[in-house]
Amino acid sequence: MQAVNPPTSLPPASTWAPRPDLALAERLFEVLRQTGHDGVGITRDTYGPGEQRAHALATETARALDLEVRTDAALNLYLTLPGRNRNAPAVFTGSHLDSVPRGGNYDGAAGVVAGLAVLAGWRQAGAIPDCDVTVMGVRAEESAWFPVSYIGSKAAFGLLPAEALQARRFDTQRTLADHIQSCGGQPDRIVQGPAALDASRIAAFFELHIEQGPVLLDGGFEVGVVSGICGSLRYRQARVLGEYAHSGATPRSHRHDAVVAAAELVCTLQREWADMERQGHELTLTFGQFGTDGQQADFSKVSGQVDFCIDIRSRSLDSLHDMDLRVQRTAEAIGQRLGVRFDLGPSSGSQPAAMDDTLRDRLRHAARQSGAAVRDMPSGAGHDSALFANQGVPSAMLFVRNAHGSHNPHEAMAAADFAAATRVLGQAMAETAGLQRAAGLETQP
Amino acid sequence: MQAVNPPTSLPPASTWAPRPDLALAERLFEVLRQTGHDGVGITRDTYGPGEQRAHALATETARALDLEVRTDAALNLYLTLPGRNRNAPAVFTGSHLDSVPRGGNYDGAAGVVAGLAVLAGWRQAGAIPDCDVTVMGVRAEESAWFPVSYIGSKAAFGLLPAEALQARRFDTQRTLADHIQSCGGQPDRIVQGPAALDASRIAAFFELHIEQGPVLLDGGFEVGVVSGICGSLRYRQARVLGEYAHSGATPRSHRHDAVVAAAELVCTLQREWADMERQGHELTLTFGQFGTDGQQADFSKVSGQVDFCIDIRSRSLDSLHDMDLRVQRTAEAIGQRLGVRFDLGPSSGSQPAAMDDTLRDRLRHAARQSGAAVRDMPSGAGHDSALFANQGVPSAMLFVRNAHGSHNPHEAMAAADFAAATRVLGQAMAETAGLQRAAGLETQP
Repeated sequence: MQAVNPPTSLPPASTWAPRPDLALAERLFEVLRQTGHDGVGITRDTYGPGEQRAHALATETARALDLEVRTDAALNLYLTLPGRNRNAPAVFTGSHLDSVPRGGNYDGAAGVVAGLAVLAGWRQAGAIPDCDVTVMGVRAEESAWFPVSYIGSKAAFGLLPAEALQARRFDTQRTLADHIQSCGGQPDRIVQGPAALDASRIAAFFELHIEQGPVLLDGGFEVGVVSGICGSLRYRQARVLGEYAHSGATPRSHRHDAVVAAAELVCTLQREWADMERQGHELTLTFGQFGTDGQQADFSKVSGQVDFCIDIRSRSLDSLHDMDLRVQRTAEAIGQRLGVRFDLGPSSGSQPAAMDDTLRDRLRHAARQSGAAVRDMPSGAGHDSALFANQGVPSAMLFVRNAHGSHNPHEAMAAADFAAATRVLGQAMAETAGLQRAAGLETQP
Repeated sequence: MQAVNPPTSLPPASTWAPRPDLALAERLFEVLRQTGHDGVGITRDTYGPGEQRAHALATETARALDLEVRTDAALNLYLTLPGRNRNAPAVFTGSHLDSVPRGGNYDGAAGVVAGLAVLAGWRQAGAIPDCDVTVMGVRAEESAWFPVSYIGSKAAFGLLPAEALQARRFDTQRTLADHIQSCGGQPDRIVQGPAALDASRIAAFFELHIEQGPVLLDGGFEVGVVSGICGSLRYRQARVLGEYAHSGATPRSHRHDAVVAAAELVCTLQREWADMERQGHELTLTFGQFGTDGQQADFSKVSGQVDFCIDIRSRSLDSLHDMDLRVQRTAEAIGQRLGVRFDLGPSSGSQPAAMDDTLRDRLRHAARQSGAAVRDMPSGAGHDSALFANQGVPSAMLFVRNAHGSHNPHEAMAAADFAAATRVLGQAMAETAGLQRAAGLETQP
């Protein structure tokens, strides 16, 4: 018996998705916490012991669920529940499993844990999707370790430039190629190909992630549906060179003080940022690292060098470029006035990315069905979803309410919020992967 | 035959001083440079191998000149040419033999080398002073190593507080007591006494030192006679605590950014400094070290902590206190406005000191006699002379013209300027120590 069109009296989609296995999720978070704790926070170092342990845990969990386990040359992890039609474009979910140094337990890992909890629920219900559904454990998303963004997802799509493999990890000073090799990957194959992923073979990419700012918490929302992902423009090796001089013996008029120059840059650009916001731009501007030279600086010297980073983010390329111009103009003006030289160094960055409207609707709808308070919001932080989206994969992100931001030991996502978000994710995945047609219904594609 | 009063027809005092041994000075500077070079600059580390080598060189030189060699419990070095009357208060000259890390060859050492060159000249001329004349190699003047000022001269006068011996050297993390002991000194005796020096037994302290600023060079003067030495007020462990947050996900209004707060403090206090100068205050204000936390800061985080130092210097206690109030008020206001907390930590410092008018006149006169262009000027930097002066020893300082300041590898004192200054020093010492009465003249005190 076949129905040409699904009956209009079909129960709401939400009734078709099995419950995620939240007890499994809780166990996984607990193991991740125990194995990742560094004494202060959570450290799952990119292509190091921390990330390796997290990937091993995800692999072992997938095997216990009888999922297919695959890795690519960059050691991205693909945990797949086979669908009825193995040739149909697959539905992907997932996130990264690395963390910043002394970060929190949820940034990244929550998206993989949620995906596994969803598939565990489906396994337990005996539900089978139309197409393959893959939980991806993406490698190396946190560019705190290597100065390269989206290493794992770029590698999966064959987009990682060969020279990126020579980037060095800030702490070990070993190259990315060396780290990948040590973990069992194949750096040569990352560059030579073939690529592990083909955008045309992926029907959708869903990424669940904790919110890294205070917007959901302040507004009383459990989940957020991301409208777009900010691009970035960064100067990670900027510096200003002045002249070391004796603090007591050098009059104000004779100084070329690098600390004063860098401080003026910060203060002036704070005002420029406020100006741009008043003009309707949406962006952030951050000097996250800033410091005098560790060897030559002294409390009794006028400083001759300050190294600093600038991070600009916006969903608008125009806003990125506008602020970039202001940074350059301001540095030039201060340099001339104080007799110091700013060297902003190379810039790097990432493109803004739009999220898929259909998938966003599906997430919003699932949230409303389940009673979760939901809002649309941009993502100021970059995510692998941006790379998937810019490769042409319909992509969407679901933010989970979370206190104290991320990239610190105090991330605080409530279990209930994670549960609500994972149910929303599971529902949207089920609809996208055709799970509603399983479970004994006789409809077919 | 006795003359009750010195004859008024006595030749000008300058004719009586033998020439300093400038070839010896040149050799000593060369050995100091070779043994002190660290690959970048000169490092003569306080109570470490660098300072030890310099003291060994001075000791060996003194022995070759048949001077008496003595050290005290803190290992200050006293190299004495005995006078006719060994009970008369002695004339002292000298300076310190340590340097900052990666500093220059002349800061400190020039004063000891000059003293040895003067006494070598006297020995070669067979000249004998009325009173003992001592070249002092002072220990541990550079507070870059231990956070304590004037360690050597305080110890010599029995003024070093017992707790200072527990201060730790920034690089080794070993205590001052431990370092002194390792070099062969007796930390217990420094505290228990008796003190090595008694101010009433010292007729004068002369300190020759390179100028550490650009004043003499810019004005075309070879030497400067110091009018007074600045005191200081320091916050060496100041910090501001904000809140780490994701750089892309945290809107401007939600930030508690430690870098922005510290930068505003720097910028606001620069304006306050200019204000005070317009009101007639003379002072310096320096943030020599300034930096985000090495562990937690990241280019993609709003910063939660900045550590910094403040160094205020002035010859006027009022100016020091006025700026101190402004620092505290400004920190408080920025803290409230940005939701961050400034913790200035303990303050330390030193008293301003006046130089002796008679000795200053003698130096100026000697300079004019020898044709050296001389000017009066304050010392923004602290020197052991300040401690001697505040103990009641008539003290004076002679600055030598020097390019590129001090506390850096580029100190550039010309040999001709050092020669001119050493002749001036030798002349003033000869007058003060009664050398003009030697060399066959039959006058007596």
